Amino acid sequence: MGHDDRCDERMLALETRLRALEDESEIRRLIGSYGPRVDSGDADGASQLWDREGIYDVDDLLMHGQAAIAAMVMSAQHQSFISRGCAHVIGPPHILLEGDDAVAVCHSLLLLHEKDRFVVQRATANHWRLHRGEAGWRVTTRTSRILDGRGESPDLFRRGLRPDEFTNG
Amino acid sequence: MGHDDRCDERMLALETRLRALEDESEIRRLIGSYGPRVDSGDADGASQLWDREGIYDVDDLLMHGQAAIAAMVMSAQHQSFISRGCAHVIGPPHILLEGDDAVAVCHSLLLLHEKDRFVVQRATANHWRLHRGEAGWRVTTRTSRILDGRGESPDLFRRGLRPDEFTNG
Amino acid sequence: MGHDDRCDERMLALETRLRALEDESEIRRLIGSYGPRVDSGDADGASQLWDREGIYDVDDLLMHGQAAIAAMVMSAQHQSFISRGCAHVIGPPHILLEGDDAVAVCHSLLLLHEKDRFVVQRATANHWRLHRGEAGWRVTTRTSRILDGRGESPDLFRRGLRPDEFTNG
Repeated sequence: MGHDDRCDERMLALETRLRALEDESEIRRLIGSYGPRVDSGDADGASQLWDREGIYDVDDLLMHGQAAIAAMVMSAQHQSFISRGCAHVIGPPHILLEGDDAVAVCHSLLLLHEKDRFVVQRATANHWRLHRGEAGWRVTTRTSRILDGRGESPDLFRRGLRPDEFTNG
Repeated sequence: MGHDDRCDERMLALETRLRALEDESEIRRLIGSYGPRVDSGDADGASQLWDREGIYDVDDLLMHGQAAIAAMVMSAQHQSFISRGCAHVIGPPHILLEGDDAVAVCHSLLLLHEKDRFVVQRATANHWRLHRGEAGWRVTTRTSRILDGRGESPDLFRRGLRPDEFTNG
Repeated sequence: MGHDDRCDERMLALETRLRALEDESEIRRLIGSYGPRVDSGDADGASQLWDREGIYDVDDLLMHGQAAIAAMVMSAQHQSFISRGCAHVIGPPHILLEGDDAVAVCHSLLLLHEKDRFVVQRATANHWRLHRGEAGWRVTTRTSRILDGRGESPDLFRRGLRPDEFTNG
């Protein structure tokens, strides 16, 4: 193999590795923008983190599609959180990439203002499925369960950390 | 175009993309060191995250320049937080780069020790402007507002996530 | 120097810089998986983040080796946290690399479920030493101290942010 071919090969390897880091960075930015978006009532911005047909499945509330997610942000309850003072803090996501698909897990906390301090209303396990389409990475399904002892919540973490997550659906 | 020129072009593209990821990493490291620095009373280290003329604007307290920020860390109130036990937890920042400038937003929590547990004293919206000078990335302005329902706090998130943040100042 | 040599040199520089970012990403993934692993009772997965002879030194409990760490996850106390509902939230780590060694610091929070909310049981300073061996990055020593005013806790942050951390052990 001549120098030019070796050069092309090394460059291709670099491009592939760089792409993986860029994917991670893009996914971190996407997930990391959720909290600031919902805390500032940005219903469109928050819902557009999902695919058009994306699902946000959180305990008693199953939202299907961007309009349902936007409606949650516009709801009286969410708006009352904002008026009272709230923080949706999303912990650093653990991300596994597989081509144009990714799975991430992270904690999230919902803090609400209360007199001279804040209370942690919810601590939640989150499992994200993401897909890269024409418009870049989008959430296809986010499943969130409160960490109150129910078995579903640790299950989300277990599933999201397994290397066979992609094949076992 | 011959192989050498194509090679140079691809390499330049790689260098540019890599630089963007390194910038992000450097900014994450800078922002991520703030909490550990103030929790350990490192007044110099904390204040030097800012430009010499940098601004830290937090609710009722406007600090202008490194000396003012160092003075806050040395203040009786901050020192009493350390003696009592405190954690300044800075959430993962959402970073937008534009050449030698960057804007980041994140949550931060101030936790204080209280008998056998901790209380969340503050949950705060943060908006960071950063600039890369000769010494690397530094904070030019950090604006922080408590998420207690006041409109300024969600505004910080809104401004920091907008793509026109750089041009609209 | 001809084009081929200049090309090789630039490529080598790119590979080195990319490797540093990948190391950071791998370490972030390792540290970031600790919380989801212990919250889901994954004793093997959690303990294997450490070297075979790795140390986890947390206030009153000194664990030496993977079996001791796994035993902590299996302990009655930890299992009772899971049944009650718990979240081990690990803040974004500040990472310093030096070849095959790394030092990271971060906050961690232990939240426990309590009726209709969560309490922050612990806010902790963490200092991680990591080493890259044949199996990739592993924790050699994690030292954790509660941020309740004791001097050891801020000391962990101080040591982990110092540039001479690697030589002064």
